[in-house]
Amino acid sequence: MKKPYAELTREELLGLQKHLKTEYRRMQAMDLKLDMSRGKPCTEQLDLSMGMLDVLNSETELRSEDGTDCRNYGVLTGIPEALDLMADMMEVQPDHIILYGNSSLNVMYDTISRSYTHGVMGNTPWCKLDKVKFLCVVPGYDRHFAITEYFGIENVPVPMLPTGPDMDIVEKLVSEDPAIKGIWCVPKYSNPTGNSYSDETVRRFARLKPAAPDFRIYWDNAYTIHHLYDIDHDHLIEILLECKRAGNPDLVYKFASTSKISFPGSGIAALAASLNNLEDIKRQLKIQTIGHDKVNQLRHVRFFGDIHGMTEHMKKQADILRPKFEAVEGILEEELGGLGIGTWTCPKGGYFISFDSLDGCAKKIVSRCAKAGVVMTSAGATWPGGKDPHDSNIRIAPSFPPLADLKTAAKLFALCVKYVSVEKLLAGMEEGAEA
Amino acid sequence: MKKPYAELTREELLGLQKHLKTEYRRMQAMDLKLDMSRGKPCTEQLDLSMGMLDVLNSETELRSEDGTDCRNYGVLTGIPEALDLMADMMEVQPDHIILYGNSSLNVMYDTISRSYTHGVMGNTPWCKLDKVKFLCVVPGYDRHFAITEYFGIENVPVPMLPTGPDMDIVEKLVSEDPAIKGIWCVPKYSNPTGNSYSDETVRRFARLKPAAPDFRIYWDNAYTIHHLYDIDHDHLIEILLECKRAGNPDLVYKFASTSKISFPGSGIAALAASLNNLEDIKRQLKIQTIGHDKVNQLRHVRFFGDIHGMTEHMKKQADILRPKFEAVEGILEEELGGLGIGTWTCPKGGYFISFDSLDGCAKKIVSRCAKAGVVMTSAGATWPGGKDPHDSNIRIAPSFPPLADLKTAAKLFALCVKYVSVEKLLAGMEEGAEA
Repeated sequence: MKKPYAELTREELLGLQKHLKTEYRRMQAMDLKLDMSRGKPCTEQLDLSMGMLDVLNSETELRSEDGTDCRNYGVLTGIPEALDLMADMMEVQPDHIILYGNSSLNVMYDTISRSYTHGVMGNTPWCKLDKVKFLCVVPGYDRHFAITEYFGIENVPVPMLPTGPDMDIVEKLVSEDPAIKGIWCVPKYSNPTGNSYSDETVRRFARLKPAAPDFRIYWDNAYTIHHLYDIDHDHLIEILLECKRAGNPDLVYKFASTSKISFPGSGIAALAASLNNLEDIKRQLKIQTIGHDKVNQLRHVRFFGDIHGMTEHMKKQADILRPKFEAVEGILEEELGGLGIGTWTCPKGGYFISFDSLDGCAKKIVSRCAKAGVVMTSAGATWPGGKDPHDSNIRIAPSFPPLADLKTAAKLFALCVKYVSVEKLLAGMEEGAEA
Repeated sequence: MKKPYAELTREELLGLQKHLKTEYRRMQAMDLKLDMSRGKPCTEQLDLSMGMLDVLNSETELRSEDGTDCRNYGVLTGIPEALDLMADMMEVQPDHIILYGNSSLNVMYDTISRSYTHGVMGNTPWCKLDKVKFLCVVPGYDRHFAITEYFGIENVPVPMLPTGPDMDIVEKLVSEDPAIKGIWCVPKYSNPTGNSYSDETVRRFARLKPAAPDFRIYWDNAYTIHHLYDIDHDHLIEILLECKRAGNPDLVYKFASTSKISFPGSGIAALAASLNNLEDIKRQLKIQTIGHDKVNQLRHVRFFGDIHGMTEHMKKQADILRPKFEAVEGILEEELGGLGIGTWTCPKGGYFISFDSLDGCAKKIVSRCAKAGVVMTSAGATWPGGKDPHDSNIRIAPSFPPLADLKTAAKLFALCVKYVSVEKLLAGMEEGAEA
């Protein structure tokens, strides 16, 4: 039945609705309890890193290569070998990095907070300004938007295109409005769309001419090595060097972490930036802490060895994730292909599939799923303030459930999409008849 | 030669000066490289915690007692068994605690930062106020003072007495000036004096009637179980409960960490407060992070077991530290006792001995030590802005150097005290003669 729903008659839709209702009731009776809401690694992925708990033991030398006893206080920016490893991962020089605690979200929060309380490289602290705005690529990452919202910053949506953010809009807004102090980006395998910024997009980012001297690109490269395929990768131009080439070396903060490489919550987060930016940041950091967890830094280096070790590790992660993505994409194609009631992305990496329903259906679809035991990310979460003006975008996170459960959940999701779409089309007909 | 220096004639002082100069030259020639500047555990202390690296390995079950997979995302405030352990350590209920990352200094910074950006329990954010002040018990901890100074807060010194801060002054200032938003305290084995607040002092703290509704006591109980003797402990009344009894449950934030229990920099920090305060804090914390390092929380629980295990562990720490404190105190008594050129504390716990020289001598003593290869904490560091109005207080940190080195360093220190004191007394005589 591959006829687009929009071409069905009222009678056909009513028949379909009856059938879908029965089918939904049947699935509801299965008493499912599945979670596709967050980008959490599954148990098998976590098991890949268990060796991390063996590389250090009571017999281990815990000195870093520069002689630092990693067990004691000190070392603000990270031990050399961990800087090297993270530098390779982030495609920058080790002296352009600061290693932090376990959460890059925390680093981003602290970056906004520092800009708010002390300003960026000598500019007025944002708390002293009447108005501060941030650009938010939509659909995007709810936790990014929540940080700026929490600081009373106005989140301004910018549409995501297949090539990345709409750069015509970004360039215009950033060059005209000095209240715009930054933009939230997930440039590679973006959250939730899964696409990566094109070369042209990155080059245009590096060439921005912001009205605000303290404008910074918040480049959250969370999925930098999180490929699903061995050769068929998205490639992203390295932004720090591109900014340097463009004569804008201080334009960007780049964030990353090992959260979805080793153990989420027990990894290493990092920030990369120009030396000027790092000096600015260190003036604050040395007040905030004596240093981060060096034993954990050493643990990561001893486990991965080097970037090749990390790459091999990520291939194993991909082997677990790839079948899950392909299963969901297969079911969406099989169930919804040609029906004209939804589009979705088929990313080559990252943690998400982005689904767009007919306008006004997303909340109802997510609600229907929940009532049958499958938790999706809240509809609207991918927009600032949780408000999707089209009520159409839904983020699908296939990583956590076991494959068999995931297939059931994807089938339920597709069923709910059909069910809610039929309702919408029928309601549209009634309105048409009344008008 | 136990005659007070003040009673010596000019000729006696000149003879002494000549002798001390020779002695100083001799020690200078030893080419020492010793550090008594910071409260860092020594290698033997760190070795006590090496078993911590064995309790988790690739065969270990990494679920917390409530079933949480500690390897994955989630759990904002800490896993139950770690909350229990830290609750016992901090002498509060587990539901009154939030576990953080590796640094209580970071928690204190974030607490000030949050108050600055968002205010305390609905009160005006400090960044919107013209003037904010903080009380600083002096001598005190330089890193505390640095945080408030960094936020442009005026640090107001309050003198430390043998019973704790001068509560007459604290009560008067806090009740009269609504700009005073907090006070930095290290209530037990204080940094640097080593004394603990008396019962009366704690009770008066709990009964404060601040002019500012958002005034909070910053109770940095860094040395809560850091005793030097097995039975002969200082006892501190638990402040949260005392505040509750006094009808001021929200008056205090209590901080602690395992930094000087397990590995500094790889431990667990925690904040304890009333449920109202915790709710206020969690509204921010959930924006800042998904959660802290639960694997490390589990590691600590598996290693220590419970508070008894932690207590036994601290006895071993004490066995290493006690001889060092006693050695320094012995040398100070032997070299300086009865000379009237310095006083010092003999604490029963903590990490520091506080020394007070004749006025105007501290900087010169520290400088003389440095020129002979022994690094002390900068003179003045124990005062806000690094400015000791008497230039007399010096913080001695005996923990880090091996015992033999420490004795040499203490002897050099005593020698420098004598040398600089003689200079001062001679200079005073010249001035007297000129007048």
